[in-house]
Parts: sequence; C-alpha cells; structure tokens
Amino acid sequence: MDNHVFIRACRGQDVPYTPIWLMRQAGRYLPEYMEIRRSVSGVLELCKSPELAARVTIQPVERLGVDAAILFSDILVPVEAMGVPVEFKEGEGPKLGYTVESLQDVDALRVPDPAIAMDFVLETVRQVKDLLAGQVPLIGFSGGPFTLASYILEGGGSRYYLRTKTLMYRQPRVWHALMEKLAETVVAFLKAQVEAGVDAVQLFDSWVGALSPRDFREYVAPYTQWIVKGVTGIASLWDLAKKDPSQIGQSTGPTGVPFILFGTNTATLLEDLASMGADVVGVDWRIELKDAIRVLDGRVSVQGNLDPCALFMPKDVLEKRVAAIIEQGRLARGYIFNLGHGILPQTDPGMAKFLVDTVHRLSKR
Amino acid sequence: MDNHVFIRACRGQDVPYTPIWLMRQAGRYLPEYMEIRRSVSGVLELCKSPELAARVTIQPVERLGVDAAILFSDILVPVEAMGVPVEFKEGEGPKLGYTVESLQDVDALRVPDPAIAMDFVLETVRQVKDLLAGQVPLIGFSGGPFTLASYILEGGGSRYYLRTKTLMYRQPRVWHALMEKLAETVVAFLKAQVEAGVDAVQLFDSWVGALSPRDFREYVAPYTQWIVKGVTGIASLWDLAKKDPSQIGQSTGPTGVPFILFGTNTATLLEDLASMGADVVGVDWRIELKDAIRVLDGRVSVQGNLDPCALFMPKDVLEKRVAAIIEQGRLARGYIFNLGHGILPQTDPGMAKFLVDTVHRLSKR
Repeated sequence: MDNHVFIRACRGQDVPYTPIWLMRQAGRYLPEYMEIRRSVSGVLELCKSPELAARVTIQPVERLGVDAAILFSDILVPVEAMGVPVEFKEGEGPKLGYTVESLQDVDALRVPDPAIAMDFVLETVRQVKDLLAGQVPLIGFSGGPFTLASYILEGGGSRYYLRTKTLMYRQPRVWHALMEKLAETVVAFLKAQVEAGVDAVQLFDSWVGALSPRDFREYVAPYTQWIVKGVTGIASLWDLAKKDPSQIGQSTGPTGVPFILFGTNTATLLEDLASMGADVVGVDWRIELKDAIRVLDGRVSVQGNLDPCALFMPKDVLEKRVAAIIEQGRLARGYIFNLGHGILPQTDPGMAKFLVDTVHRLSKR
Repeated sequence: MDNHVFIRACRGQDVPYTPIWLMRQAGRYLPEYMEIRRSVSGVLELCKSPELAARVTIQPVERLGVDAAILFSDILVPVEAMGVPVEFKEGEGPKLGYTVESLQDVDALRVPDPAIAMDFVLETVRQVKDLLAGQVPLIGFSGGPFTLASYILEGGGSRYYLRTKTLMYRQPRVWHALMEKLAETVVAFLKAQVEAGVDAVQLFDSWVGALSPRDFREYVAPYTQWIVKGVTGIASLWDLAKKDPSQIGQSTGPTGVPFILFGTNTATLLEDLASMGADVVGVDWRIELKDAIRVLDGRVSVQGNLDPCALFMPKDVLEKRVAAIIEQGRLARGYIFNLGHGILPQTDPGMAKFLVDTVHRLSKR
C-alpha cells in the first residue's frame, strides 16, 4: 500500500490527485447500511459481527469510490472492553454505567488484551482486507483519551464537560491515572489493528476542542503523544518508554503506518497537535484550510475541512467551495480531502458521490 | 456612568483595576434567584414581570460585587415578539413553533415595536436603574442574528445547525430576508433599551462559531455590522442607512453606549469580529487571551475568557489561572474579566464571589 495515493498524501509525498474519504462514510445515510443495521439489535452488535461489519466497511468504497476504507466500529468499543457498561438506546446517545471518583475506581478498570476482549474488531480488519483485495487502504481507529475519558466520566455525551473537567481540576492524580490507563488501552488496541492489517490509523479525540490550550497541554497532550509514539514507534522502544518516558525521543521514528490525529474545534490547538508525532492532523471547517496549514507549518499533512452541512448546498455552490479547498490544500505538505466531522445521517448519498467525483476531477494534475 | 471602571474598560481608557461581571450572573446557581423563579410558572413569565426581573437583575450585584449588572431576560424575547411561538419545558431547552420555508413565511413575521411588544423589558430596565441608583452600569442585550435565526429554523437548540445552514445555502434570498428582519428587530430592541437607560449593550451571537469563516462573512457579518452601526450610530443616519447601506460609513461614529459583541468558538472569526464596529469583543476559553488580543490588534477591548468550569477548581489553582488571565489582559486596549460563556447552574455562589474578589485584589494597581 506504500504507493497508494492516500498513504502518499499522509506522508507528504507527491500524488496524482487529491485523495478523499469521509468520516462516518459507512453509516446511516446509506440505504445498504440501514438494511444490514436493521438485521441486528444494535450498533454494538453490528460492531461485534465481523462479517456484517466488514461488509458495511466496504459499502462506501463500492458506492462512492473513496480512496480509503475506514473500519466500521464504535469509538466506545475499547471503553466497554475496559469494563465499563455501554448501552445504546434507540434515538439517544450512548449511556455508560461507571463512576470514577477515586484511584480505586480507575484501578478496577482493565487494560484489555485486544486479542481477547476486542478480537471481533481484529477479525473485521482481516475480513475487510480480504474483501478489499488491495483496492484501497484500510484505516483503523480508536477514540482519543480525552474523548473516551469524557464519555466515561459524563456517562455519555456532554455539552460542558463539567464532570470531566471537575475531576481533572480537583483530583489530578485520579485524572492522570485514568488517562494513563486509557493511553495504554488505546496503544495496545491500535497496535493490534496494525498487526491485523490496517494500513493507517486515526485517533478520534473529537471533543478535545472543549479544552483551553493550557488545559490541553497539561491534562491531555502527554497522553496523545504517548499514544502516537507508542503506535508509530517500534514495540520494544515503546515498552521501554512506558517505564522511562524520556526514552520516547530515542525511537528511531515511525516505522509503521501513517497516524492521523483528529479533533473538532481545534483551531487554537493546532500548533500543539502538530508536535505530537502524528503524520496527519485533521481540521474541521471552523478554520480556513490555508490558515491551518500555515500554523501546522509543513510538519504534518492535513485532512479536512469541509463542513458536513456543505453536502446540502446546490452542486454549483459546493463545487466552488471544493475548488477553493483543493487549491488551499496544495499549500500543505500533503492533503487529504475529508469532511470536518462525520457525514450526517440526512445526507443524500448522491451528493456524497458527487463530492468524491468532484474532488477527483478538480484535483487531477 | 462615563467614568465607571466597566465603561472605561469598554472604551479602552485607563482603569484602577480590572472590572468583572459574569455572563448569566443572575441565574439558577443563586438560591435567591431560585426562590423568585419558583414563584412564577416559567422563565418567560419571569422576564415579563418587571418587578421580579429587576430584583433578580440586581441580586448578583449585591451578593458578588460585580462591576456591572446585566438585564435579566431571555434571548428569545425578540423572537417571540416577532410572532414565533416560544415555549420552555421544564428541564429541556426552548421549543419554537414556526416554520420558515419561503419568503412568505419571513414576510409573515413582524418587526415588533419594542415599546409595545417588549415593553416589559424596557420597564425592567427603568426599575433596575432605580434600584441600582448609579451604583454600577446596567448592560442591556439581545440575541444575535445567527443565533436567533438558528433557534427559529431548528425549532430550538441544535448541534449541527443543519436546517439553518441548509436554508442559508439553498435559499439565500429567504435567508437574507430573515436576517434583515432579525437585524431590524434587534436594532430597534437595543436602541429602545438604550433609550430606557441601559449603559452598555451586548449582542449574544453565541452560536456563530458553528460557521466557517467564509460562511460567517457571507451570510452573517453584514447583519452584525448593520446592528452595531444601527445601535451605536445616530438614529437619523441609521434610518438613512437602512435605505442606502453605503451611507453607514458616513455616521459620525459611535455616539451612544459601548457595544459588546459576544460569541463562542470564535477563535477563527476574531479578525472579522474586530471590524464590525463594536467597542468590545468577547472571547471564550478556547483561545489564549494574549493570542486573541494579538489578532484583535488594539482595535477593540476584550472580554472573557475563563472557562465556566474553572469555578470548580480548587481556589489556589483558580487564583493562578486568574492571575495569568489578568496579566495577559494588560496587553489589550481595554479588558473586562468574564467567563467565556454563562455561569453553570451547578456553580457554588461562594466560588463566584471568590472569583470577583480575586480579580479585584490581583488587578489593583
């Protein structure tokens, strides 16, 4: 896969056209997804059925012609594997049933062995790789440490992250213990996905933009960096680094697959995100792409930054917007077209197809 | 009031200490507010009872010693006055019952005469001014045009603003007609508040940060500017400008009260917000204050930028954070301490008092 346009863009190498994939491209806006989704009782059941999850994963590759597949799974899978009860109620967000008030509560959470607790994900990876037969790369993923911590601490989605921030501020030792456990879990999970065959990984720390830059640096960035280094560095050095973090810099550098770091509302965190060791940083639509590229300063490739709502524009308006983004993307070390957040369930699949075709057509050199 | 520390900071004049007030300072975290709130059936009823609204407005002045009072009201008051049914259900957000699908739907909305449709607000202003007896300035306010449009179009709060943006993109004439009507309503409403006696006004365009910079410029900024100029310019020129917008620049400049422009998630919009003609731009906690000040470039004073969750920090941690903000605030033309968004209902009033005292103590020259 090293020579595929998506992988080359991640690494900042020359590409014949701008690669594109869409966050949540395997999902509810596709009738063929809904058909499979209705055959199981819930989204976690779908994640845990490798054959179905694999079929769902390749649906957008077939229908849209995107340049990468992303594993169909849920960001809460590793949290459930740690021992936190997770429930999805129809029409509502996820509900998590675990309380963290002390170090004991953190200690009681497992660092799961992915090969045991999350083997259904690894089996999905293997089946998708077979189905794709080398056509396009497969992206593996995990929720990021702040986002996973916030789901655990809030018991679900949140608007102000008050419980999360209160623990962070008032019980920093408990916070850091939780983040350490999450980081270990995520590293093991992503490494297992790489070993199972994914060609790139994305860390969805979707809600990290709720933090002030200062809080991000103090409470989250060390774990983000730990995860990136742990996944991209070689294993033995990683294991060493866990005991002596100063050794992290001694890694001979990324030897594995490209690492994409994603969040929303991160305009003021980009300088920090560029220094985590990732190959690619994702940006949402709240920042002009050229401004993001200027801040990222050639250190990483960039992914984004179309508003998911732009898929509801008339085609001619959308096309102009896409052209402007592609043009700005040329200023980056490498650029991957994507939405700034997941595609919305109300989206017309025909518009998603139009977007993919337009990006390919307009970017061909 | 021209010589009051808050007004002077708005105008970028020297101040003996950093003024502070808190967004939503009259609200549910105060037991004395809850007592009055429980005596009426809902929050709109409270807004429509000038004597109660006035008492609630001055509660935080008495308890906390803040440097400004802000009118107790709801940002949806002008929307209801336009003819949109608004309902607050206990424990849920507001529900609005109006559909905008065509120019006819916009035409059917009124531009209300504030002296008739919103006289309860003006009466509250008059009563508050009496109660305050010149102790601190009173801030009037209105919801901003994007935020009000989004409440109307979504029928309540929203996460992705899909209906709002869809109308904006697909029916720009309807969008612009709606924004024009909102702008006229807001100008008349704010001017009426000024005439009734408020000493400053704040436009809460709280959700404007959901837009890309490009969309903000195209679909919202002209109306923001129109509102600021309409309120701060002299009336006759404003009336002229409505007919011929090119005349707006001919205003002899602000003759009225300071104008504060507020939004959240606006890190990438600050350069635009600085050029709307407002005296003060509010910022949330997602941007370091010094970075915001650098972008605003001495053109406006700044208000913010403490995370409302910071009131849940231990006092010593909070004090350090406050000191850093005050220090950075000295770089601004003028600086007013505030939270980056409304104070949370779970907040301990004692912590709010500690914050106010700490800001005063640390900033005294």
